[in-house]
Amino acid sequence: MSRPNFTEETASDIVLSRMSDDISPRLREVMTSILRHVHAIVREVEPTQDEWLQAILFLTRTGQLSNDVRQEFILLSDTMGVSMLVDAINNRKGQGGTESTVLGPFYAVGSPELPLGANIAREPGGQPCFLSGHVLAPDHSPIVGARLDVWHSNSHGFYNVQQLETQPEGNLRGVFHTDAEGRWCFQSIMPSSYPVPEDGTVGNLLRAMGRHAWRPAHVHFIISAPGYQTLTTHLFVNGDKYLESDAVFGVKDSLIVDFIRHDDPRELAERGLTQPFYTAAYEFVLEPLSATIDGHASRRLPQTTRAGDD
Amino acid sequence: MSRPNFTEETASDIVLSRMSDDISPRLREVMTSILRHVHAIVREVEPTQDEWLQAILFLTRTGQLSNDVRQEFILLSDTMGVSMLVDAINNRKGQGGTESTVLGPFYAVGSPELPLGANIAREPGGQPCFLSGHVLAPDHSPIVGARLDVWHSNSHGFYNVQQLETQPEGNLRGVFHTDAEGRWCFQSIMPSSYPVPEDGTVGNLLRAMGRHAWRPAHVHFIISAPGYQTLTTHLFVNGDKYLESDAVFGVKDSLIVDFIRHDDPRELAERGLTQPFYTAAYEFVLEPLSATIDGHASRRLPQTTRAGDD
Repeated sequence: MSRPNFTEETASDIVLSRMSDDISPRLREVMTSILRHVHAIVREVEPTQDEWLQAILFLTRTGQLSNDVRQEFILLSDTMGVSMLVDAINNRKGQGGTESTVLGPFYAVGSPELPLGANIAREPGGQPCFLSGHVLAPDHSPIVGARLDVWHSNSHGFYNVQQLETQPEGNLRGVFHTDAEGRWCFQSIMPSSYPVPEDGTVGNLLRAMGRHAWRPAHVHFIISAPGYQTLTTHLFVNGDKYLESDAVFGVKDSLIVDFIRHDDPRELAERGLTQPFYTAAYEFVLEPLSATIDGHASRRLPQTTRAGDD
Repeated sequence: MSRPNFTEETASDIVLSRMSDDISPRLREVMTSILRHVHAIVREVEPTQDEWLQAILFLTRTGQLSNDVRQEFILLSDTMGVSMLVDAINNRKGQGGTESTVLGPFYAVGSPELPLGANIAREPGGQPCFLSGHVLAPDHSPIVGARLDVWHSNSHGFYNVQQLETQPEGNLRGVFHTDAEGRWCFQSIMPSSYPVPEDGTVGNLLRAMGRHAWRPAHVHFIISAPGYQTLTTHLFVNGDKYLESDAVFGVKDSLIVDFIRHDDPRELAERGLTQPFYTAAYEFVLEPLSATIDGHASRRLPQTTRAGDD
């Protein structure tokens, strides 16, 4: 027969040869890489039939745990460093823009539009915190009307979308726009460190790998402005004990910010507060859209015929 | 800070370094291989954020399509050649035993125990077929009382478990035991080629890769006997048009069998039939259990401290 036998040696070539000549070149490129590496894993690991079945069931349960408010495969991607690697590849900066990090699983569209300075904390508790700064172009000129979509966990480490029944609507979320000087500011409470969900397949895997599930305290930002690349990032609280072991590898040195404690009675009185508060400042720098296009064009040169990619 | 920044270059080492020293050596080995190769795929493919999300959603839906009577991740493993590669690694034969192939997703425990020669076809239709042979040791001495669990699709290409409401209970399934001469035989109908399920994520992927979903006609066997390695295999119908392009890569030359057509009126009369029938014969050879143990021991030498593996 002309068909070569499927063996450990021929397996990958046989499977790859089944792809038709007229399929999407991008799909061919992606599937060739995936199949060669997945087969290489099998050859290296030599799974028993039982181990193979464990892998099948792990993947199946990971899919079945995902729903409207939980995405266990994104959590798997995050905790295995895949999401941050994709982020790094898609955000090769050339012009000194602020570094990006993972979106995370708790972003939700439709946060309330608020005036600069508003307080996004809608439940009692937590330590008051004032965040401010500017959104700037690479030449440090202000970007007027830049949109900041912000969200963070409460003092117990839970996001609004995780506790829709117990947290007030829109708690610790808001959309702001920079003023004529490119300035942004809002009031909130200190974010806290928290574990990613540990009650699913990913939690089991982290435990088996001897890893903790904690993320250091941070505030999420998506910052956009016409003519500029949208920036998805966090500001991390300096001093957090999990900065060096973030369960999703999201920390970058340039995103760690001092949250300064203020307990001078006169400062408290000025702000109408009776307890100590924190302040943090950060200057975001957005890169112009043309940099993205150039960057992508050079990175994507072999696949310029692909449509709908960028 | 002592923490190295997570970059395209450092990503894999950072993620791998998070594993504790005291975890299962086997898990460390498996996760090291998986993480290095998955990261390599990301580096090679350079997925856009949208492509990454497509992959997340593909995996999620594949898990969510799986249930008691359907396993889309096994189908993915089968159609991507992973199952047959695992099979090849776990069935490195040294003593001339019959070759194995995939179990497939339609096996069900509890098929009816039947006497030799019984007919497993319980619905009208199909071309009568008589299968027979022996189960032998490597020295070709008969194995008495070997258990054969057999199942196959009907003339429309569907298994009993796929059509529980329309096919009779136990249709085209049976358990037989070899006689004092190691002989087995039963009556059925000719199996037919059929497509693996095409209405899910795997069907979409096969279409995108320009691949068909068909399997050549075959009869499944699981053959077991005390003191011998259990054999999971198929017999394929010679001449089937899909023998060279089985969607799950299960065909091996040694498993292709001539199903001989008989239309001599005298032969029909002898069997009490009014239409032509087919016969097929096969001599199965089981390898003794000690071969497995030796094979595994030598293959697994670096991991002999693992418990519960074999």
